[in-house]
Amino acid sequence: MTDTDTSPKGRRRSGGRAANTARRGITAVEQQPWRLPVNQDRPIEPLSPEGVERVHNATMQILEEIGIEFLNPKAITYLKNAGCTVRGENVRMDREFVTEMVAKAPSRFTVTPRNPERQLTLGAGHLLFGNVSSPPNYWDLEIGRKVPGTREHFRNLLKLTQYFNCIHFCGGYPVEPVDIHPRVRHLDAMFDKLTLCDKTMHVYSLGKERVEDGMEMVRIAGGLSHEEFDATPRMYTNINSTSPLKHDHPMLDGWMRMAQRGQGLVVTPFTLAGAMAPVTMAGAVVQSLAEALAAVVLAQVINPGVPCMIGTFTSNVDMKTGAPAFGTPEYMRATQMTGQMARYYGLPLRSSGVCASNVPDGQAMWETEHSLWAAVQSGTDMVYHAAGWLEGGLIASPEKFIMDCEVLGQIQRYMEPEICDVSDAALAVETIRDVGPNGHFFGVQHTQDRYETAFHQPFLSDWKNFEAWEAAGAMWTPERAHGIYKRILDEFEAPALDPAVHEELTAFVARRKEEGGAPTDF
Amino acid sequence: MTDTDTSPKGRRRSGGRAANTARRGITAVEQQPWRLPVNQDRPIEPLSPEGVERVHNATMQILEEIGIEFLNPKAITYLKNAGCTVRGENVRMDREFVTEMVAKAPSRFTVTPRNPERQLTLGAGHLLFGNVSSPPNYWDLEIGRKVPGTREHFRNLLKLTQYFNCIHFCGGYPVEPVDIHPRVRHLDAMFDKLTLCDKTMHVYSLGKERVEDGMEMVRIAGGLSHEEFDATPRMYTNINSTSPLKHDHPMLDGWMRMAQRGQGLVVTPFTLAGAMAPVTMAGAVVQSLAEALAAVVLAQVINPGVPCMIGTFTSNVDMKTGAPAFGTPEYMRATQMTGQMARYYGLPLRSSGVCASNVPDGQAMWETEHSLWAAVQSGTDMVYHAAGWLEGGLIASPEKFIMDCEVLGQIQRYMEPEICDVSDAALAVETIRDVGPNGHFFGVQHTQDRYETAFHQPFLSDWKNFEAWEAAGAMWTPERAHGIYKRILDEFEAPALDPAVHEELTAFVARRKEEGGAPTDF
Repeated sequence: MTDTDTSPKGRRRSGGRAANTARRGITAVEQQPWRLPVNQDRPIEPLSPEGVERVHNATMQILEEIGIEFLNPKAITYLKNAGCTVRGENVRMDREFVTEMVAKAPSRFTVTPRNPERQLTLGAGHLLFGNVSSPPNYWDLEIGRKVPGTREHFRNLLKLTQYFNCIHFCGGYPVEPVDIHPRVRHLDAMFDKLTLCDKTMHVYSLGKERVEDGMEMVRIAGGLSHEEFDATPRMYTNINSTSPLKHDHPMLDGWMRMAQRGQGLVVTPFTLAGAMAPVTMAGAVVQSLAEALAAVVLAQVINPGVPCMIGTFTSNVDMKTGAPAFGTPEYMRATQMTGQMARYYGLPLRSSGVCASNVPDGQAMWETEHSLWAAVQSGTDMVYHAAGWLEGGLIASPEKFIMDCEVLGQIQRYMEPEICDVSDAALAVETIRDVGPNGHFFGVQHTQDRYETAFHQPFLSDWKNFEAWEAAGAMWTPERAHGIYKRILDEFEAPALDPAVHEELTAFVARRKEEGGAPTDF
Repeated sequence: MTDTDTSPKGRRRSGGRAANTARRGITAVEQQPWRLPVNQDRPIEPLSPEGVERVHNATMQILEEIGIEFLNPKAITYLKNAGCTVRGENVRMDREFVTEMVAKAPSRFTVTPRNPERQLTLGAGHLLFGNVSSPPNYWDLEIGRKVPGTREHFRNLLKLTQYFNCIHFCGGYPVEPVDIHPRVRHLDAMFDKLTLCDKTMHVYSLGKERVEDGMEMVRIAGGLSHEEFDATPRMYTNINSTSPLKHDHPMLDGWMRMAQRGQGLVVTPFTLAGAMAPVTMAGAVVQSLAEALAAVVLAQVINPGVPCMIGTFTSNVDMKTGAPAFGTPEYMRATQMTGQMARYYGLPLRSSGVCASNVPDGQAMWETEHSLWAAVQSGTDMVYHAAGWLEGGLIASPEKFIMDCEVLGQIQRYMEPEICDVSDAALAVETIRDVGPNGHFFGVQHTQDRYETAFHQPFLSDWKNFEAWEAAGAMWTPERAHGIYKRILDEFEAPALDPAVHEELTAFVARRKEEGGAPTDF
């Protein structure tokens, strides 16, 4: 809620029914307040100090001796001018230069979206979560089959992104709205994102128009001058290398545009061990690091000090079929190893919440759990796809989104140091003495003083016994999640937005549509 | 398979169809070989060194000032003679004495079941898993509702316990066979356990006859003299305190009988925070430690050096309903804190694989995952209930058993240090050079040399894309698990057992039934 929110519509939205229902405690989900949870755990480090040096050395060998292809003449020019060895599209750079450039990237930075209360800090020990991004398809229990994503699905999943306090940023499209023409899709999609959500925004690096329009719309939504926009990160992009050893033209174009304007930059190689990377996990990690650091170097050449993060998407394939696998033991260790190396390079880390399962069942949850605990264990700063992902990223599902948010809430609670309070009051020896061997703790003052906040209260877990659960409809987890999804849509109210800003965004979209939007020939 | 297995029946069972099908690779489950996995991860330690001292001090305060009730005159006599302060059933003991006694318990010990190849080592950094134990009820997809456990269910779940190499020991009854009369149930049940399974056995501490009969049957099954049985642990018991601050008569009776004969001893207080223990997790941990250490002291007084483990079952309740909750964030931290204290006392740790869910769905898996990762993070040695548990332990389910075994296999794989190999061959710089920016890694020699063993191959996860998964029947995880369950039952062959031993066990059961079995009046 902002002071600029003076329209009746804005007022009702921000301070009216939602606030009242929240006060009455009849919202769809009783959730924890918005906050940036701090990871309390020392990272798991499978590499010895010598192992870290070996991984670093192999990474530098790739950059020095093998090189990375930059399929973008402008990027080549930047790197050539900075002293790199260029042969055609192949760029090699020596380790002293890489180290010098990577050191320019800050180890900590903020991103400030249109609602400054949603500001993120990356690299500060927070573990931040974003929605599933980019699936072309949608699945829910009601439809019961895989269907192409629509703008309605897209908007519904955006509402979940905004609704849940455990979702800290708005990633790529939570489902691709394929019923909008690709020329103008980015305009309608960003309009929906900025009007339904006030959290940090991602923009796809898919050509000049999409990137420039995305930046402009985020600037307008924030009520910012161009100078204010450029002064500090207001949004971010994520690019993927074309493994092995390549960065493609449009991704590099977006990367450079965002670098020039000082926005957040995340580079995430898609290094599937045994397919686009070596079958050995260390080899896949090394290749991923080389591809990522090459992009970081480019950004630092363009705009020294621009915030960069490295992402890991290293996983393995099913060697019988070539199908990608997610949340595997190998995925977990690769994430941890990459986390060690991110700390070595002083860069924040992005990882993901992922699974291969096609429906929100047991497999979906054990694979997702493995990827989320790998995020905790690796010291990850930013978790993409943390809610709603199915089928290796080809399906977005609202039931999975709701289920994941229950788990994210539990992980956030896990990170509260109060659980492990060892004050005299928490050790409770006097209470144990008072209760003695024949009493119980339900009614005592020590419990009464704490029972409302002592434990995480899940919104989706059903703790009833079998008979009570059966009497209540015998609903399995996805059915309960579906009901919650529907209730959230019913009660959803968009975050406040200055009507003048709303109008300016509308006009911008209309004008850019008239101009033809973005070319679709790549 | 043993050399004593000379009967046609024994031969067929041990060397016949099972071995052939295994060779042909058409078993229900392609699983990893039997081994004792070594936990590679440094434990997560939420307590500071000062916090450890504060928890220890509070635990000692309870033992010194408040005392524990031992509802067993024989136990009282032992403790009184050892110098404890006894008032009625209340026993207090000072910290020097506790420290001295606890130090007598070995930090590492073996348990050797009838098949010595199944020997366990506790306290050596292994993470060992056992089947669900003691649910009175059974649920499977075919029955589709909760039903009282039968001997058939019991035997079927025992077959899973034996079948899976990731199940290292046979806990309590995987479901209570309530169709067997309680007087003789322990005889039939132990007979089934020892003939269907060759892994380490548990016996319930529920009265003299059950404990003595259990020890005798394990002795017979191992072909051991009484001296051989007493010389080293061959089995174990687990007792639960009657929290708060009490140990009951039959549990203590079994504890003392097993202590006298040098068998494995596990004491696991059931300290639900907010119910039988303080609402604060540190308070619940402190109470649990005091109750556990009191039992350890008793065992060391009776037989100095007898192997003892402390268990943790500290969790929280739903403060709205009083229902127990499992796999919660609070449960995870309590397990980690107890792990720190177990290491402080030099005792191996038992924890559990647990959930509150009533069916094998998403909630079941995220709760179970949380408890299993808490086991990894806490340095747990022995994980009870690691496969098959539902409804807070009131239901055993074969589908859940199969699903859990998939997860346990993945955790075992996670603990293989080879994943993080950073040899030159694993770093694979030359392979990356050879493949270059336009190749792929599927066909290269580096991949060919490793693809069969590079990655964990799940037996239950379905990595097909949606369309292929749909074409194959669109089966959710529990349905696939049910099919695997049935195939395992079809192909199950009991482990080899000397026919003379089989006969001796049969005769023992017959004789003890004639004698009336065990009294049922407690």
